[in-house]
Amino acid sequence: GAGFRASEHQHCRYNPLRDEWVLVSAHRVKRPWQGQLEKPPNEDVPRWDPKNPLCPGATRANGEVPRCTLILLPPVSLSPIPRLHFSPLQVNPHYEGTFVFPNDFPALQPDAPEPDDSGHPLFRAAAARGVCKVMCFHPHSDLTLPLMSLLEIRAVIDAWAELEAELGASYPWVQIFENKGAMMGCSNPHPHCQVWASSFLPNEARLEERTQRQHHRQHGVPMLLEYAEQEAQRKERLVVENEDWLVVVPYWATWPFQTLLLPRRHVLRLQDLCDSERDSLASIMRRLLIKYDNLFQVSFPYSMGWHGAPTGPHLQEDCGHWQLHAHYYPPLLRSATVRKFMVGYEMLAQAQRDLTPEQAAERLRALPEVHYKLRPQ
Amino acid sequence: GAGFRASEHQHCRYNPLRDEWVLVSAHRVKRPWQGQLEKPPNEDVPRWDPKNPLCPGATRANGEVPRCTLILLPPVSLSPIPRLHFSPLQVNPHYEGTFVFPNDFPALQPDAPEPDDSGHPLFRAAAARGVCKVMCFHPHSDLTLPLMSLLEIRAVIDAWAELEAELGASYPWVQIFENKGAMMGCSNPHPHCQVWASSFLPNEARLEERTQRQHHRQHGVPMLLEYAEQEAQRKERLVVENEDWLVVVPYWATWPFQTLLLPRRHVLRLQDLCDSERDSLASIMRRLLIKYDNLFQVSFPYSMGWHGAPTGPHLQEDCGHWQLHAHYYPPLLRSATVRKFMVGYEMLAQAQRDLTPEQAAERLRALPEVHYKLRPQ
Ligand SMILES: O=P(O)(O)O[C@H]1O[C@H](CO)[C@@H](O)[C@H](O)[C@H]1O
Ligand SMILES: O=P(O)(O)O[C@H]1O[C@H](CO)[C@@H](O)[C@H](O)[C@H]1O
Repeated sequence: GAGFRASEHQHCRYNPLRDEWVLVSAHRVKRPWQGQLEKPPNEDVPRWDPKNPLCPGATRANGEVPRCTLILLPPVSLSPIPRLHFSPLQVNPHYEGTFVFPNDFPALQPDAPEPDDSGHPLFRAAAARGVCKVMCFHPHSDLTLPLMSLLEIRAVIDAWAELEAELGASYPWVQIFENKGAMMGCSNPHPHCQVWASSFLPNEARLEERTQRQHHRQHGVPMLLEYAEQEAQRKERLVVENEDWLVVVPYWATWPFQTLLLPRRHVLRLQDLCDSERDSLASIMRRLLIKYDNLFQVSFPYSMGWHGAPTGPHLQEDCGHWQLHAHYYPPLLRSATVRKFMVGYEMLAQAQRDLTPEQAAERLRALPEVHYKLRPQ
Repeated sequence: GAGFRASEHQHCRYNPLRDEWVLVSAHRVKRPWQGQLEKPPNEDVPRWDPKNPLCPGATRANGEVPRCTLILLPPVSLSPIPRLHFSPLQVNPHYEGTFVFPNDFPALQPDAPEPDDSGHPLFRAAAARGVCKVMCFHPHSDLTLPLMSLLEIRAVIDAWAELEAELGASYPWVQIFENKGAMMGCSNPHPHCQVWASSFLPNEARLEERTQRQHHRQHGVPMLLEYAEQEAQRKERLVVENEDWLVVVPYWATWPFQTLLLPRRHVLRLQDLCDSERDSLASIMRRLLIKYDNLFQVSFPYSMGWHGAPTGPHLQEDCGHWQLHAHYYPPLLRSATVRKFMVGYEMLAQAQRDLTPEQAAERLRALPEVHYKLRPQ
């Protein structure tokens, strides 16, 4: 259209991965904010706190006996789940690398009975079975991924790949996710993520399965592989890239500084990554997360997670339409204390964003790749 | 299944209106909460504050000249939009009922140019046009809907119906929504809602259009009419009911105390409600919102909004599959300061809830229908 400028004129953009639209109203960022301010994160987390149930040597606070304890010390590789060492201890080992243990209040358990049939199509229930695990990234509570070394991040990637392979041997979906920061519902400052494996394909998996399958059928190429190639050429939404990976603020981003981490080659699952791709993944994650922290000079809150081809029975199927990727959904908008609220119009009608994806990418791109806490003053 | 109990055994439930599932893990509410606590709302809101831009007689704070001022004084009825009284004033009138004015930082404006064609199917943009209005419910800043009289709430309902009719004369979707409480991104304590009319059907509207149309085609009856009849019989998820309306915690609720407000008869749009239905709506809204406030003895935060049949060009179409309804999405879970976070697993996989819809309905049902602030001590 004549005179159209994305940064000035509201418009909608289509998200082909979720088959929905986002309203981009970039002029809105000019309005003053008089609403709720967030508490900045606590900067005084002790490195080791025997009362914190995620710390090495700590007693688990909830009083339940953990049913299994698994120590991941890179580079020692894991034996498959059935051969794990089960331990009735309530005390964590003095782990030195990553540390995986069962969530003591799991939303998914392996043995729930089938729900009864309601006898009416508007009241449909289905069985849900699974396991929930917690993975500590590092023994030190005062670290986060962007402050860890490349080797330490690489150990996290290996642990992710192994858990995905092990749980994915039987479960159709293994969701690895990290809630970072109290603002994102994270209830413990110790660096950790969660892994929930389920007997069903969750909504987001079903959605991405459908859209990627359809794109592949229509265009003969995996959607996100084609998308990564396009973004590598267009460049305006690139945040960081290396030989194997790129990170973009997707064309259809809803959260202000949302990013999508994509491999350049066609990869189905985390466990398919080769040695050098895991190293370059550690590197690009670190670069992205340092930029995130530098944006508002605060430990940047987000929820992130991995989506790869389904597992379990799907391991036997052709999943060529899938492309491995990670989503980062960070809530902050203007500063360390002003977030975007996805409420009202967003919940009832459609997501709306206050700056263009290109503006967000440009800001992230311009930030230094040395963490503000480690910069010489 | 043998021995299945919804309050003890995790399971999934299907939401036929959004074609997605929710994971119900009711045993999870037993876990201790060590995460973020919310600030309880400010209880000292002055009745009139000349610095609050939503107050009668106040000067609008943002420095922009409002383009139109419209005073709704019940029972005076409105003239259609083109004949509104336009006023270049920056000072609000001394309104005594509801008061509608244009949002000075609108996400949707009537005149944005068409975006350019990107030339690639993965980069799709579309034009977005519309208007955004703000509606004050009452001249007093220290009131909320549950503390207003039935007549005052009835005036709000009439104003909603008139705005929907007026803006819906040309726009295909008119989204009325209220963000209540700072926790829900509301930046002004004065009781108000917003109305965003758009040239497009937003995601949620498209979704409900598709699922309701399909149900109607398959079963020959509007989905939500059939659903309301079922819930009226089953009773276990009922919160309040009267001759024209019922409120349930839907079978597929995701937010802990989410509710769905449904008419008993087949109604397409707010403006189709007759006089007595508007009175009974004021009554049931008041009863629901008093229960909400009584639950944790706090002004209960939520986002709510109305969904009715599409308007504009759709007024000419058969919309018999639609049923008018309101969604209430409140975030609180355990107390006035502990909310449910829809993060991590929820954003990347599937919504998960920590108590059953039946438990939530039972708690709400048991609460008194006199507001805790108005109860004799
Ligand atoms: O328009 P307000 O009240 O300033 O803003 C609030 O409601 C809008 C519509 O739901 C959201 O987009 C904003 O994130 C929220 O803070
Ligand atoms: O398991 P946590 O960290 O205690 O809890 C957090 O993550 C879960 C999974 O995303 C969410 O369901 C909870 O609402 C959130 O507070």
